[in-house]
Amino acid sequence: MKHTLSILVEDKPGVLTRVAGLFARRGFNIESLAVGTSEDPTLSRITITIDGEAQPVDQVTKQLHKLINVIKIRDLESKTSVHAELLLVRVAGEGEKRTEVLQIAEIFKAKIVDVDRRHVTLRVVGTTDKVEAILELLKPLGILEVVRTGTIAIGRGRG
Amino acid sequence: MKHTLSILVEDKPGVLTRVAGLFARRGFNIESLAVGTSEDPTLSRITITIDGEAQPVDQVTKQLHKLINVIKIRDLESKTSVHAELLLVRVAGEGEKRTEVLQIAEIFKAKIVDVDRRHVTLRVVGTTDKVEAILELLKPLGILEVVRTGTIAIGRGRG
Repeated sequence: MKHTLSILVEDKPGVLTRVAGLFARRGFNIESLAVGTSEDPTLSRITITIDGEAQPVDQVTKQLHKLINVIKIRDLESKTSVHAELLLVRVAGEGEKRTEVLQIAEIFKAKIVDVDRRHVTLRVVGTTDKVEAILELLKPLGILEVVRTGTIAIGRGRG
Repeated sequence: MKHTLSILVEDKPGVLTRVAGLFARRGFNIESLAVGTSEDPTLSRITITIDGEAQPVDQVTKQLHKLINVIKIRDLESKTSVHAELLLVRVAGEGEKRTEVLQIAEIFKAKIVDVDRRHVTLRVVGTTDKVEAILELLKPLGILEVVRTGTIAIGRGRG
C-alpha cells in the first residue's frame, strides 16, 4: 500500500537531507517528494509518497519523530484526504497528432501552456491515477519530456 | 535572482539525499524542491528553486555534475520556460467568509476540493506569484493549512 506522509519541519538547512537520508538508509523507495512553505513562514511541509508494502511505515515515522527540527507527521489516507499532483508534459504535435493532443487535453481538462510547430506542452492537475492515465494516452504520440511535482495531500473535514 | 534547476537523476536510493546535501553544505537555502518520475521510468527529475543572490549558482551546478547518478542539469529561466506549482489550502469558511472564499476562488480559477461546515479547501495551480497572491487575499479570512508542491518548470519551444 502506498503511503503519503505529510511532515511539518523547521525551515533550516540540512533538514531535508536528514529526512530523505532516513528513508534511504531504511531502504524505502521514495516515489515522490515535494517541499514547500507551509502556513507558518518558519516551517516547511514535506510530502513524501512511499511504498509501505516492503516494510512497515510506523517504524520510519517513529524515527522521524526523533529527528531534530521535525514538528509533526501525518499519514494521509486517500479516504480521509484530498490528493493532487501537477504534471508538465511536452508531446509531439505535428499535423494530425496536434488534433489528437488537443482532444486528449480537453478530456483531461489540461491547459495548453506552450505550442511550437512540432510540439505541444500541457499542464495537468489531478490524482496520480489521472496523471498516469493521460501519460498513457499521450505515449503513442511521442512524449519528449515529463516533469512532475509528486503528490501533495491535505486532510478532509474537521481540521 | 531566483534559479530553477531541473536535474535529471538515476532513480536510485540516496540520490536525493546527495543532491539535497550538496546544496545544504554550500549554504544554499532551498526554497522548494519537487521530485517525480520523468519520461524515462529509470530516471527521476528533481526541480529545485534556490536564491542565487548570495552565491553563484554555476559553482553548485559544476559540483552537481560530478555527483554519481546525476545525468543532466538545466537552469530554467522564466523567459524561456513555463513554470507552475500546485497549492492546497484550507481556509475558514463560515457564513459570510464562505461567500468571500468562493469569490476569490473564482477569480483565481481555483477548484473547491472540500467543504465542511466551517472550512473550505481550495486547489490552485499557477506561478509562484499567483499562488502567493491568492494566499495574501485568503490570509485575513484565516488560513488553517497550506500545502505546496514547489515550482516545476519545462523549457519552451524547440526541445
